[in-house]
Amino acid sequence: MPTNKDDNSVYIGRRPTNNYVLAAMMILNEGKECVIKARGRAISHAVDVAEVLKNRFMQNVDVKDIKITTEKLTGPDGKESNVSCIEITLAKRK
Amino acid sequence: MPTNKDDNSVYIGRRPTNNYVLAAMMILNEGKECVIKARGRAISHAVDVAEVLKNRFMQNVDVKDIKITTEKLTGPDGKESNVSCIEITLAKRK
Repeated sequence: MPTNKDDNSVYIGRRPTNNYVLAAMMILNEGKECVIKARGRAISHAVDVAEVLKNRFMQNVDVKDIKITTEKLTGPDGKESNVSCIEITLAKRK
Repeated sequence: MPTNKDDNSVYIGRRPTNNYVLAAMMILNEGKECVIKARGRAISHAVDVAEVLKNRFMQNVDVKDIKITTEKLTGPDGKESNVSCIEITLAKRK
């Protein structure tokens, strides 16, 4: 399941784009906003998911907000590293 | 030069992050807004550039706007493909 306990978030990993597009569509079709979240290299993939959804599957969906942030991750060796994150909020047009 | 004819844009490619951070700082220090642009896999890199600039070098800079779009590219074999793009607009806080 690409969704998590935040029940309107979709976390982007290494699965095929369409898996995440489908997960996001299910959330949007319940009338909720959907937040697509990704870190590091998956950020490009998150933008692909939002664009494919919007252009190919649901023309009545808009990008409502995009946020970028930095998170500190602690690796298995105890070293801290900074990783960039993105959150793309999608919503159906009223 | 990572900048192009749009003299307040920085196009992200494969060079080290700091090259682009420096190019963006020069534009911002002239009092202009700076637009960081990237396509495809470089999108993650563009977010890194914006975050490093903002968190490490210029604390008085805000993300003013983020746009995502899709461009149609025609490959050398004449095939069309869709590629996602990002434009991150940065501006000094007044």
